[in-house]
Amino acid sequence: MTADPRRLTHVDEEGGARMVDVGQKPATARIAVAEGAIRMAHVTLEAIESGRTTKGEVLAVARVAGIMAGKRTGELIPLCHLMPLATINLQLTPDRELPGIRARATASVVASTGVEMEALTAVTVALLTVYDMVKATDRSMVLEAIRLLRKEGGRSGVWVADALGEEEPLPPHQV
Amino acid sequence: MTADPRRLTHVDEEGGARMVDVGQKPATARIAVAEGAIRMAHVTLEAIESGRTTKGEVLAVARVAGIMAGKRTGELIPLCHLMPLATINLQLTPDRELPGIRARATASVVASTGVEMEALTAVTVALLTVYDMVKATDRSMVLEAIRLLRKEGGRSGVWVADALGEEEPLPPHQV
Amino acid sequence: MTADPRRLTHVDEEGGARMVDVGQKPATARIAVAEGAIRMAHVTLEAIESGRTTKGEVLAVARVAGIMAGKRTGELIPLCHLMPLATINLQLTPDRELPGIRARATASVVASTGVEMEALTAVTVALLTVYDMVKATDRSMVLEAIRLLRKEGGRSGVWVADALGEEEPLPPHQV
Amino acid sequence: MTADPRRLTHVDEEGGARMVDVGQKPATARIAVAEGAIRMAHVTLEAIESGRTTKGEVLAVARVAGIMAGKRTGELIPLCHLMPLATINLQLTPDRELPGIRARATASVVASTGVEMEALTAVTVALLTVYDMVKATDRSMVLEAIRLLRKEGGRSGVWVADALGEEEPLPPHQV
Amino acid sequence: MTADPRRLTHVDEEGGARMVDVGQKPATARIAVAEGAIRMAHVTLEAIESGRTTKGEVLAVARVAGIMAGKRTGELIPLCHLMPLATINLQLTPDRELPGIRARATASVVASTGVEMEALTAVTVALLTVYDMVKATDRSMVLEAIRLLRKEGGRSGVWVADALGEEEPLPPHQV
Amino acid sequence: MTADPRRLTHVDEEGGARMVDVGQKPATARIAVAEGAIRMAHVTLEAIESGRTTKGEVLAVARVAGIMAGKRTGELIPLCHLMPLATINLQLTPDRELPGIRARATASVVASTGVEMEALTAVTVALLTVYDMVKATDRSMVLEAIRLLRKEGGRSGVWVADALGEEEPLPPHQV
Repeated sequence: MTADPRRLTHVDEEGGARMVDVGQKPATARIAVAEGAIRMAHVTLEAIESGRTTKGEVLAVARVAGIMAGKRTGELIPLCHLMPLATINLQLTPDRELPGIRARATASVVASTGVEMEALTAVTVALLTVYDMVKATDRSMVLEAIRLLRKEGGRSGVWVADALGEEEPLPPHQV
Repeated sequence: MTADPRRLTHVDEEGGARMVDVGQKPATARIAVAEGAIRMAHVTLEAIESGRTTKGEVLAVARVAGIMAGKRTGELIPLCHLMPLATINLQLTPDRELPGIRARATASVVASTGVEMEALTAVTVALLTVYDMVKATDRSMVLEAIRLLRKEGGRSGVWVADALGEEEPLPPHQV
Repeated sequence: MTADPRRLTHVDEEGGARMVDVGQKPATARIAVAEGAIRMAHVTLEAIESGRTTKGEVLAVARVAGIMAGKRTGELIPLCHLMPLATINLQLTPDRELPGIRARATASVVASTGVEMEALTAVTVALLTVYDMVKATDRSMVLEAIRLLRKEGGRSGVWVADALGEEEPLPPHQV
Repeated sequence: MTADPRRLTHVDEEGGARMVDVGQKPATARIAVAEGAIRMAHVTLEAIESGRTTKGEVLAVARVAGIMAGKRTGELIPLCHLMPLATINLQLTPDRELPGIRARATASVVASTGVEMEALTAVTVALLTVYDMVKATDRSMVLEAIRLLRKEGGRSGVWVADALGEEEPLPPHQV
Repeated sequence: MTADPRRLTHVDEEGGARMVDVGQKPATARIAVAEGAIRMAHVTLEAIESGRTTKGEVLAVARVAGIMAGKRTGELIPLCHLMPLATINLQLTPDRELPGIRARATASVVASTGVEMEALTAVTVALLTVYDMVKATDRSMVLEAIRLLRKEGGRSGVWVADALGEEEPLPPHQV
Repeated sequence: MTADPRRLTHVDEEGGARMVDVGQKPATARIAVAEGAIRMAHVTLEAIESGRTTKGEVLAVARVAGIMAGKRTGELIPLCHLMPLATINLQLTPDRELPGIRARATASVVASTGVEMEALTAVTVALLTVYDMVKATDRSMVLEAIRLLRKEGGRSGVWVADALGEEEPLPPHQV
């Protein structure tokens, strides 16, 4: 949005916080994909996976929490616009290599501003919810590698995270 | 809370999500400290730091966002209790080694359940707010190392994160 | 929306919850009408009706509560879209035959998805508010017959509840 | 709370709405149990039950929605007190006789006022969420028989709904 | 709270915003009373007063809005504590001398911090709601004289606004 | 909106509250500017201004609070529409003549209804936040002169507050 990398869009000339004015920008289709993970002990991941129903329930609750938080991003992030999202979806995948749970959120909207923050917020709150549900078992879990993977639409067009080229496919959705 | 590391407190016998019942637990003083970081390009950190006022504003907005989100944790995390926090404070410190911003939150309450989620939520939303305010400059920023550092009060007493012993002192609060 | 009545739109191929993507659907005028009732003892209805002002106040508070909840439906119902409603209105009518209060809500929007949930949520929260305001007098009140009456707009066109044909006119608004 | 069944506690002498002042009342353990149901076509219930995972997901989402709404009752119902609930739990049980889904919520708190509205709100929002998730299949579903079953604690002691004596046991939780 | 009138309680030593820690302070009964007014054209006040029901409705809606906002003060004011209020009540009185509407709110709580902000927020949102409901008639209305009248409880004891001594009685509640 | 100044748009024929239906109105660019002030003792203003960082922090927190509240106006004001604002900005300026802080908010949207309430709500909550942050120093502060300055867009075109003609320029933004 700016040629000078040291000019922040959310700070005005005198240093005051401001929302970016999107009133002149056309409403276009926009998509953002974000990801992140929560790393935990093997035994904790096993607790989540032990029994179909239980695993489903922990991940189902986390998915609902992430979707609901993604819809309310504009209430949480002070200079974000409130937006009527077209959709936000969230995949939560156990990864025994990590070990832990990986989250990937896709948000879309037809609007005059992007939905990166919605995707990132959905990922983050889903991972915090996993933490909450299993914290009595393991308080040492760490949230990590939370970042934007891809962004489409708007003046800046398609943006893909470095060293990804195309984001790698996640293993199929297993919940 | 449970001797069997595979028994989750937030899932009932049939696998359904549930809140932990804290009605029988006495209200005692509880503290939780959490931390995390957002890693970014050097030039982005410089944009945040360029000029006292501007830096103050980005970090001031992020701090307010984190405190406000910490107070509303029980709305975001489905099985968390809504709690009247005694206080929640948040330090945001630029770290040129990272390079990026480190966040540390301390939440306290006199209640029958802990405030880990409040401290973690405050850290996370503060870091997401930093992302939002500088994202036009740098979309590759990564949130990382978000974890609980310390927890005091309640039946489980003091818990300190592994390999920390005592959490290392942060450099003095610089905003 | 689907030919197979056993395929749920809000559950994906692997059984995970999802929001329906409305990004490709055109924004059109949509209306939904819902109704419901709260049944109570005669003496309770008399308490609500005793004196113009008092009756007005109980029903006025319930109407405001229903309208405000209808606007926030997307926060309450996990997979609902947040929507900028064009309007939501609510009639609350004492019915001595029941005996109790009948509620009817009409929500409208120009959007790419319908407003059934907004109308149903407004009805429900208005009835719960009536319960709250008179519960010290009568705890046996029952909410019942909460349903969609009519829906217009969108691909599925006009839908009218069975056995109604056209919804019967309510007695005139009496608050 | 009042000997005269026509005096409403939430309306003052001149007919204005008011909150009941609970400042002088001691904090004691209080419990409320509420129930309700959503009636639907057989084929709709089959869609919810077809396949373990899918059923779990619809009911898991509805349960989370009900719990989250129960915690925020004081925001929805104008004259309700905001309260730090000890717990709120929610059972959702398919009933082929109905046919439909039955919901039962139990809320508890140590406070100076009761939690009837929290239990009723949790039941209602869970049932509305079921409606939302399957409405593309069946728009004729009806919410019904939403009522308080039982209330314990506070000056008025134990209250049990008429014609129940003791509430009948629900079939075991099947999600 | 501080002997040095230039030391702000909500700003730490380095100038960062902070919540005051109330964890060590005992929970005691606290009350705060605030007032304010909206001044308008005579014809606008007549529109509000024309007909009992209509007047009741505008003021009833404003009163509900003020009470609901007072309960959520801790969400709106960044460094305010979320508190389970014992009660908050609100009087709205037409004043033909002004001409306009006067609002007076009384909030009470048993807690370790005061409720001034709750009373002020209730007054302010009630007056904004009056503005909203009649603004198509009169856009020149002005909110004024919004201030704390009285505060009781806590270490600082009773505080009464200057030049009031005891707050003057409002004319009887007329809605 | 109405030729008869005694007909209120937010009250229906029988006196019941209603939202104005904006479904038939075209979406156009709309702007609203509102202002207000908080008057305080000289020593209190000095506490806010003593030291760059501290002043910045009090006003930065108030500005964030005002922006966030402005975005949520539709939740606070019962008959207001929830709206996806294009932007809302807020200037807070110390005024030693008053003495106190002056606030001016500008809200804009492309929508079928105006944003006066958003601008007024942002001003008001920012001023309440200033009150909260310095109230331990000075409880006698008064909020005053909160009003709409200017409104553009929609059927009623440009409206400017009486006796202003053009609103006077504020001194440059000094935070």
